[in-house]
Amino acid sequence: MVPANDADGWGHPFVHRIKVRWGDCDPANIAYTGRIPDFALEAIEAWWQHHTGLDWYQINLDRKIGTPFVHMAMDFRSPVTPRHLLECQVALKELGNHSITHAVRAFQGGVLCFTGEFVAAFVDAAMMKPRALPHDLVAAIKTAAPRD
Amino acid sequence: MVPANDADGWGHPFVHRIKVRWGDCDPANIAYTGRIPDFALEAIEAWWQHHTGLDWYQINLDRKIGTPFVHMAMDFRSPVTPRHLLECQVALKELGNHSITHAVRAFQGGVLCFTGEFVAAFVDAAMMKPRALPHDLVAAIKTAAPRD
Amino acid sequence: MVPANDADGWGHPFVHRIKVRWGDCDPANIAYTGRIPDFALEAIEAWWQHHTGLDWYQINLDRKIGTPFVHMAMDFRSPVTPRHLLECQVALKELGNHSITHAVRAFQGGVLCFTGEFVAAFVDAAMMKPRALPHDLVAAIKTAAPRD
Amino acid sequence: MVPANDADGWGHPFVHRIKVRWGDCDPANIAYTGRIPDFALEAIEAWWQHHTGLDWYQINLDRKIGTPFVHMAMDFRSPVTPRHLLECQVALKELGNHSITHAVRAFQGGVLCFTGEFVAAFVDAAMMKPRALPHDLVAAIKTAAPRD
Repeated sequence: MVPANDADGWGHPFVHRIKVRWGDCDPANIAYTGRIPDFALEAIEAWWQHHTGLDWYQINLDRKIGTPFVHMAMDFRSPVTPRHLLECQVALKELGNHSITHAVRAFQGGVLCFTGEFVAAFVDAAMMKPRALPHDLVAAIKTAAPRD
Repeated sequence: MVPANDADGWGHPFVHRIKVRWGDCDPANIAYTGRIPDFALEAIEAWWQHHTGLDWYQINLDRKIGTPFVHMAMDFRSPVTPRHLLECQVALKELGNHSITHAVRAFQGGVLCFTGEFVAAFVDAAMMKPRALPHDLVAAIKTAAPRD
Repeated sequence: MVPANDADGWGHPFVHRIKVRWGDCDPANIAYTGRIPDFALEAIEAWWQHHTGLDWYQINLDRKIGTPFVHMAMDFRSPVTPRHLLECQVALKELGNHSITHAVRAFQGGVLCFTGEFVAAFVDAAMMKPRALPHDLVAAIKTAAPRD
Repeated sequence: MVPANDADGWGHPFVHRIKVRWGDCDPANIAYTGRIPDFALEAIEAWWQHHTGLDWYQINLDRKIGTPFVHMAMDFRSPVTPRHLLECQVALKELGNHSITHAVRAFQGGVLCFTGEFVAAFVDAAMMKPRALPHDLVAAIKTAAPRD
C-alpha cells in the first residue's frame, strides 16, 4: 500500500515496522511528540543491524565506535496512533568519512505520518573523538545498500 | 555563567532547569538522543505554564485546545550528562494566528549542549481542526513575554 | 531453549519477544530498571491483543473499558541487555469478575531475567467505576487461553 | 496537607516532588502505569543524592558501585495526573551489608496515589559482584537519616 519503490528517489528503502502502544499515546489519543523521534531512531538502529549485523550496543561496546547524532529535523504530517503498524522507511542519504545521513519517512495505513533527516558522526567510543568508520562496516553498508 | 541577556537576540529568555538522570543516559554515559527532544518539549511546556498559567494537560482538557507539533529541528553540540543541571532557555520566535514557533537552547556548566526550533499548530482538541488561540491566551503571552 | 511447557505449572504460556535497545540501557550497560516494568506491560498488552483481538487502545476507546493496574510485584534475577531477544512469557493466573491477574517471566538466552505478578481492575473508561468484563471478552479469553 | 510526621511509623520521610507531565499520561488521561515505577525510582535516586551527595551516575561512575534493584512491589491506589505535584515520600526501611530497602509512598493533593517497596543490592560496578557499601556512604546515610 505504501510506495516503497516509487519515482521520488527513495528506491527500495529499508522498512522497519513498529507497534505503537497505549503507553506511547497522550490524552489527545495520539502518540506523544516526545516519543516520535525515538521511533525514527529505532528504525535507524534497525537499519544498522540489518546492513552491518550489529546494533548500536554491539557497535559501541564491541567495536568501540560511537555514532552520536549531531542533527535531526522532522516534519509531523499526520497523527500516529496504535490503530496501524507504523511503517518506517529508512534510506541512506550520504555516507561520509566522518558522518552518515539517513532519511526516514513513516506511514500508517498508507498515510504519511512524518518525515525526518538525521545526521550522526563517527567517534571513538572511549575518547569521543572523530574517527572514520572501519572498512568492513563501510563495505557492508555499500554492499547491502548499494542504491539506498 | 550562561549568557541570558546577551547580544545575540535572545533577550531575557525563559529558563527551565532539568535534572538529567541515570535512566536518561545510555551506555555511552551520556543522555540518549531519543530523550533529548523531550527535554526541549518539557522546557516548552514549562514556558506555556509560566506564561499562561496552564500546562498542556489543562490547555487540552480544560480549554479544549491542542497544540500538536508540526516541525522540529535540533543541533546537538555537546553531550548532556547528569553532572550539571540542564539549563533550557526558551524564546518565543513567532506567534501566528494558527501556529507558534519556539527556539530552545540548552547549556550545562556554561557549555552549549543543543539548540532547537519547534513549530506547533493550534487545533480544536476534539476535532483536530485548525483554530486560533483564544484572546486571553494571546494576551497572556504578549503581556508576559513582550520581548521574548 | 526456554522451558515453555514445563512441570512448574506454566503450561503453554503466551510468548512475546522484545528487542531490547541501546536507548533502554543505562551506563551500567544493562536495561535501566525503570524500563523493565514496561517490558512486562508490553507483554501483557500483547497477551490481550492475542486473546481478544484488541489492544489497550481499542479496549479503552472502542469498548470503553479501562484496565488500570492496582498491583505489581517484580523480582529481578539477571540483567537484561540487547544481546538477546527478551522472551516474555505471560500466563493468566486468575480472571475474576472485577480484576485479572497475570504472571510474567522473561528470559534471555535461556536465562531467567525477571518474574512478575500484575493485577488489573476492570472499570468503566469514562467514570473509572468498577465494572465486569463483557461476556464476549471473557469468552474469548476462556476459549483462547483455557489452560494458561 | 500530607501527613509527613504521622503515627504510622514514617517519621520525617525525605520528600521529592515531581511535576507530572502531559507526555506521562495516556489516553485515559492519567499517568501511564509504565511510567509510575520510574517516578518512584526518581524519588529514590533523589534520596541517595540528598543523603550521600551523590546521584546514581556519580555512585556508579566515580565510586564504581552499582545498586541494581532485585525486587519491587507497588500498589496503585489512586490515579496520578498533572493536576497536582506528585509528593513522593521515601523512607529507609533497612540498610544491610549487601542491600538496601526503601519504602515509597506518593500523594497528590493529600490523596495517596501509590505505595511501593524497593530492594537494591550493592555490587562492584565493573564486575557486578556483591560488595558492601563503603563506610563513608554508610556513615552519611546513618547521620543524615538516623530515623528514616
